[in-house]
Amino acid sequence: MASAASVFFQLSPKVQALYEKTREFVEFECIPAEKEFHAQLGALGGPARWTTVPPVVERLKARARSLGLWNTFLPPAYGKYSPGFTNLEYAALCELLGRSLLAPEATNCAAPDTGNMEVLAKYGTQAQKDRWLVPLLNGTIRSAFAMTEPGVASADATNIETRITRDDAHREYVINGKKWWISGAGDPRCKVYIVMGKSDFSAKKHLQQSVILVPADTPGVQVVRPMHVFGYDDAPHGHCEIIFKDVRVPFENIILGEGRGFEVVQGRLGPGRIHHCMRSIGMAERALEYHIIRVTDPARKTFGKLIAEHNPNPIVDSRLEIDQARLLVLKAADSIDKFGAKGALKEIGMAKIVVPRICCNVIDRAIQAHGAAGVSQDFPLAYFYAAMRTLRIADGE
Amino acid sequence: MASAASVFFQLSPKVQALYEKTREFVEFECIPAEKEFHAQLGALGGPARWTTVPPVVERLKARARSLGLWNTFLPPAYGKYSPGFTNLEYAALCELLGRSLLAPEATNCAAPDTGNMEVLAKYGTQAQKDRWLVPLLNGTIRSAFAMTEPGVASADATNIETRITRDDAHREYVINGKKWWISGAGDPRCKVYIVMGKSDFSAKKHLQQSVILVPADTPGVQVVRPMHVFGYDDAPHGHCEIIFKDVRVPFENIILGEGRGFEVVQGRLGPGRIHHCMRSIGMAERALEYHIIRVTDPARKTFGKLIAEHNPNPIVDSRLEIDQARLLVLKAADSIDKFGAKGALKEIGMAKIVVPRICCNVIDRAIQAHGAAGVSQDFPLAYFYAAMRTLRIADGE
Amino acid sequence: MASAASVFFQLSPKVQALYEKTREFVEFECIPAEKEFHAQLGALGGPARWTTVPPVVERLKARARSLGLWNTFLPPAYGKYSPGFTNLEYAALCELLGRSLLAPEATNCAAPDTGNMEVLAKYGTQAQKDRWLVPLLNGTIRSAFAMTEPGVASADATNIETRITRDDAHREYVINGKKWWISGAGDPRCKVYIVMGKSDFSAKKHLQQSVILVPADTPGVQVVRPMHVFGYDDAPHGHCEIIFKDVRVPFENIILGEGRGFEVVQGRLGPGRIHHCMRSIGMAERALEYHIIRVTDPARKTFGKLIAEHNPNPIVDSRLEIDQARLLVLKAADSIDKFGAKGALKEIGMAKIVVPRICCNVIDRAIQAHGAAGVSQDFPLAYFYAAMRTLRIADGE
Amino acid sequence: MASAASVFFQLSPKVQALYEKTREFVEFECIPAEKEFHAQLGALGGPARWTTVPPVVERLKARARSLGLWNTFLPPAYGKYSPGFTNLEYAALCELLGRSLLAPEATNCAAPDTGNMEVLAKYGTQAQKDRWLVPLLNGTIRSAFAMTEPGVASADATNIETRITRDDAHREYVINGKKWWISGAGDPRCKVYIVMGKSDFSAKKHLQQSVILVPADTPGVQVVRPMHVFGYDDAPHGHCEIIFKDVRVPFENIILGEGRGFEVVQGRLGPGRIHHCMRSIGMAERALEYHIIRVTDPARKTFGKLIAEHNPNPIVDSRLEIDQARLLVLKAADSIDKFGAKGALKEIGMAKIVVPRICCNVIDRAIQAHGAAGVSQDFPLAYFYAAMRTLRIADGE
Repeated sequence: MASAASVFFQLSPKVQALYEKTREFVEFECIPAEKEFHAQLGALGGPARWTTVPPVVERLKARARSLGLWNTFLPPAYGKYSPGFTNLEYAALCELLGRSLLAPEATNCAAPDTGNMEVLAKYGTQAQKDRWLVPLLNGTIRSAFAMTEPGVASADATNIETRITRDDAHREYVINGKKWWISGAGDPRCKVYIVMGKSDFSAKKHLQQSVILVPADTPGVQVVRPMHVFGYDDAPHGHCEIIFKDVRVPFENIILGEGRGFEVVQGRLGPGRIHHCMRSIGMAERALEYHIIRVTDPARKTFGKLIAEHNPNPIVDSRLEIDQARLLVLKAADSIDKFGAKGALKEIGMAKIVVPRICCNVIDRAIQAHGAAGVSQDFPLAYFYAAMRTLRIADGE
Repeated sequence: MASAASVFFQLSPKVQALYEKTREFVEFECIPAEKEFHAQLGALGGPARWTTVPPVVERLKARARSLGLWNTFLPPAYGKYSPGFTNLEYAALCELLGRSLLAPEATNCAAPDTGNMEVLAKYGTQAQKDRWLVPLLNGTIRSAFAMTEPGVASADATNIETRITRDDAHREYVINGKKWWISGAGDPRCKVYIVMGKSDFSAKKHLQQSVILVPADTPGVQVVRPMHVFGYDDAPHGHCEIIFKDVRVPFENIILGEGRGFEVVQGRLGPGRIHHCMRSIGMAERALEYHIIRVTDPARKTFGKLIAEHNPNPIVDSRLEIDQARLLVLKAADSIDKFGAKGALKEIGMAKIVVPRICCNVIDRAIQAHGAAGVSQDFPLAYFYAAMRTLRIADGE
Repeated sequence: MASAASVFFQLSPKVQALYEKTREFVEFECIPAEKEFHAQLGALGGPARWTTVPPVVERLKARARSLGLWNTFLPPAYGKYSPGFTNLEYAALCELLGRSLLAPEATNCAAPDTGNMEVLAKYGTQAQKDRWLVPLLNGTIRSAFAMTEPGVASADATNIETRITRDDAHREYVINGKKWWISGAGDPRCKVYIVMGKSDFSAKKHLQQSVILVPADTPGVQVVRPMHVFGYDDAPHGHCEIIFKDVRVPFENIILGEGRGFEVVQGRLGPGRIHHCMRSIGMAERALEYHIIRVTDPARKTFGKLIAEHNPNPIVDSRLEIDQARLLVLKAADSIDKFGAKGALKEIGMAKIVVPRICCNVIDRAIQAHGAAGVSQDFPLAYFYAAMRTLRIADGE
Repeated sequence: MASAASVFFQLSPKVQALYEKTREFVEFECIPAEKEFHAQLGALGGPARWTTVPPVVERLKARARSLGLWNTFLPPAYGKYSPGFTNLEYAALCELLGRSLLAPEATNCAAPDTGNMEVLAKYGTQAQKDRWLVPLLNGTIRSAFAMTEPGVASADATNIETRITRDDAHREYVINGKKWWISGAGDPRCKVYIVMGKSDFSAKKHLQQSVILVPADTPGVQVVRPMHVFGYDDAPHGHCEIIFKDVRVPFENIILGEGRGFEVVQGRLGPGRIHHCMRSIGMAERALEYHIIRVTDPARKTFGKLIAEHNPNPIVDSRLEIDQARLLVLKAADSIDKFGAKGALKEIGMAKIVVPRICCNVIDRAIQAHGAAGVSQDFPLAYFYAAMRTLRIADGE
């Protein structure tokens, strides 16, 4: 396996050890558990798929924590909350996690919680940290990030139409708006939304926004439906449409202050996107492994030759695309470490265009090599493709 | 709308009239009914999705029949069964049908029934015709074609492993084997399978196969599961895995005779594939229309311009790909009319490679233009993509 | 050889006979003569390459004329000047001519003369016809079309800056301006330029232009240099930069009248571009033949297999691209016949985008298959590529 | 300008200073001198283009040497001959040199001399070094590497057919064979060929080859013709076809010993190919700069917008491709430093596939943006394309 660890930089012995442990956990515990996860989910069926989390998830979480594979995403700048890995070091680990659909959550390194925890750790008050960050770091609750709105280019926070109004009499904010593609909002353990809205439509373009904490059980919050991705609904996680109707939260729930929403979001997106990229590289590596296994299967020779002998080009192309994209991502991670998320904007921007694009290519080639099985539930390839095709839209071009 | 009717050949007044009628039926009845179909299916939920057909389907069938839009696929050579249209003429109509997921079945022109009806009309005994062809032509039952097997390159009938054994004592054939991706086998109205197996493993390569009729309720037939395509299960139609375990049918159920299965299948695949191609062109046209509507939506201007003004290339590319592919398909249809399926092998072969490929391109561009909505259930685009990606595997490369 | 003649339409016996004769002339006389042409050109060397036409050219012209393969491009509407073939019929012949660099000129069907002859036949006065059209039709002189200017998007005639000023006193027009990429202007036999300029900069956008005949030896005409295409200068034909400095021609030399230049050019471009497309299809077919010969050469087996067996995809892709593009071109030709150049605008526009694009693809694959020989003077492939890459710019996108 | 120097690794102050000096020399002296070079070459004309080197070349060489920009390619392992830069450090410098056609030779870092000097430095006897390496290092002579043969896959040294026969009586080797694409063999200063041939056709596959020094003026050496690349002959450098007919050289001219040719060539190709890659990245950067300048030229607005505003995608794609490819090349260079050419085989192999491929893409996009000027002699883009298209064949796929 070509691995992030062998590229340019040398992992320190401490990280190297964790890298090996992570690798084993993912390969020998998370990936084999995927079948169990789908079986448990299928057994629940219908609406129960949204109210109960398949038990295998919490079992893996306990296991990962006991192995010390927990919260590795939080960089040293976050002090006591951080296990002390740079973005570059985490990139190596994160790629491994991306290989299994279950590994990121098992290690408490799953989106959107990681980005949300970074926001709380960086901008939260002590009270906000105590109430939300601590249980998130402990993996006892989950969270969602509510920014995207229907009919609005998601990439552009200045188009947000959700309204956050002050009610000074009650010292509360009143939130009205409609969001969709809110990932994780379907999970019964999701207890808080970090909501982006506009508190002042007449302020300067980048000072209109505020970001505010909304407990999931606040009256007026209505999860309307899960959005589907191709035919997948991603229960129990979900990518939900949510209506906020006269939702009231106390003044204390605002993050950083009125008009500082744009600033908060900018800080969140940099590392978050690189995490996405790194996980995606791991997903692409796994797809390529399926691809290679398939085309070198002696039982699948046609006209006396392995499929790979008929035409090795698809594998070569995938190898070349992955390795180049990984270098770009590592460079971006390294730039964040050295120059901060702002200083690494260009590198992050390049990575987030390239990675979903090449992942779609790599996975599509693997699908083609599998014949009809490639698009079916017997392999995770079609699901991977759907995920990456969506990421290409969300983060990509 | 660029239409098949305007290309090279002139539709006769009779066909032109039917073309217009078909167009109106599809646009104003079938496409609007799709929402109803999905609502009825969703309301059924769970296992009921496989035992009840949404009522809208039979309503549309009655309507199409009353309009005279029925069985238009069967060419003149089939005598009294045929409404009298050439493959080239039907190609023009078939493209229209392909625009809606409901139109082919509504007009009794849906796969796999069309191919199966051609087989029965061409090779069936009078008894076989009376029992199966007549109700199929009337749309009172449906059928499936059971050829593909797991672990076997589907394109190559010589690899089939299903075994058809003679039991002379009982004048029965005994069938044992495993099939998958049997489209339509999930439908409660599916009453018969046309099964491909080997009756003589020691005969010459192309004389080992036989094709045999198996009533769906024969003991030993077990529909194991529906295969998924990118998360879609296509209920109630389904693409099913089926086990045939000591399934017994009388000698009379064989088609054309022992050892002639290859011949039967060859005759079936030519026109069947061109129908697929033509419907796919219609699907691509509809995707392009969504695409155009989206990028010329005045409400979606960014930086003061329509999306289409920022970059018209994706639409141009789709237009160019569709128009070229259609010409190829029309040429293949014309060749079948003039030289028979065998004489048109090269043209059919070219069309079946090109069409799924360009359809995937066209639909993918439309998805990209829609942002996240493009992969969701709010548009049929992701479903179209999944269908075409699968066709590209099955028929394409 | 896949040929235009087998597509949809049936050639009449008369055209079929000419088709066969053309095919033989091209394959057995023009293509073998290419080596001679290059040898004669090389022997001339230096400046003499621009003042003497290799003798093989006139020999082939005499031969073609004696075979009745002469001026086949001019459609029936041109009356006595026309040999009577429709655009669709000529398309079949023209593809054959495009296979050899020498065949179009040998049959007096070469650009830019064909377009220029159409202009004169359609819009010329009797005097203009007598002086220029007759010798052009006889192949005793050649001509150029001077429209493109440096620094101006060539596709847009409204940007032309060449100035045509009336001198009523002398009943002359005075022309000042700079043109480039004027194909054929290097040829010593080129006796007349059809020049596009503006006679009234203040008129409405499409009424500012006039088209005027300028004898090549008029004082003030200076051929500055040949433009190179990749490393080719195309001597003696040439694509020249020309300065018009106070060039004076009599009032009688204007075509159709002042302010009607846009109209003239529009009429010229339609069929001219389709001729380009058809010849290009022929060039692509020849490149594909080189490709196939190379990859099926038993002497070039590697690891015990023909190159084509290692990977047939490049040939399949080229075959598919050519056949689709040809159908598009034939449809455009047919549309010109049925609806005129204006009525076929969309079809022509599509063909001229698609054809250079796919030709570049087809030729590039052939080059790759030839290794370094593919880019060298030992095969015409690199030259073909250069020509098509330029056409893709000029006519394409 | 995105530069190699900013990627991952930090240049030491010493290298950084040289990097800046190199940059200035290339931008302000080499690139401006290109026009002069072509003018001097054109003025020579005809056969003189092959016998006289345009004087500007030696002027730039003197200048580069005085600036200390000389022989920077030779890594520290070569002891006293080396200026002391690692492959990774040189990669940064080499990219800059690749930006101008004149810079590599001006700094004595041009192919094929660099590879040949490495061979002599690594494997040469003291006598061979004194006679050939010293003047090569001083830039007073040039050299060629004669390996490729017509009709033989150049990538595979085991197919070589040139015969090296011992004549023990005269203590000479007799060489017979035909080579082509021998770069640099046209140059009047080229004084020695490093020739690959087979000294023992019956030995084991990789022990048949020997590499031998042949002075250019040895009787029996006949330079037949320069091969053209898309119309370019690259005078006076040239890529020549050479016949060796009974060419006799003394025993002392063999490098490393009989049967060790494969070993010599393997050692030569690793760094040499990475140099090619790095120069190519520089060429791609320059093409992208032309591209950007063109599409942001205010004088070239169409419909009121900069070309880059109509569609920025081509520039973005080029930027993404170059940056990814550069990282791959740097990784390969770093691997050579750390693990030797053998240990870096995979990295080198990946770079040499990717780089010519993306360079062709980048340059082709730049050509398209320039319209017809892009394929002409007014920009170096078509020449760049021809060079990269050829490299893609030679080194690529």
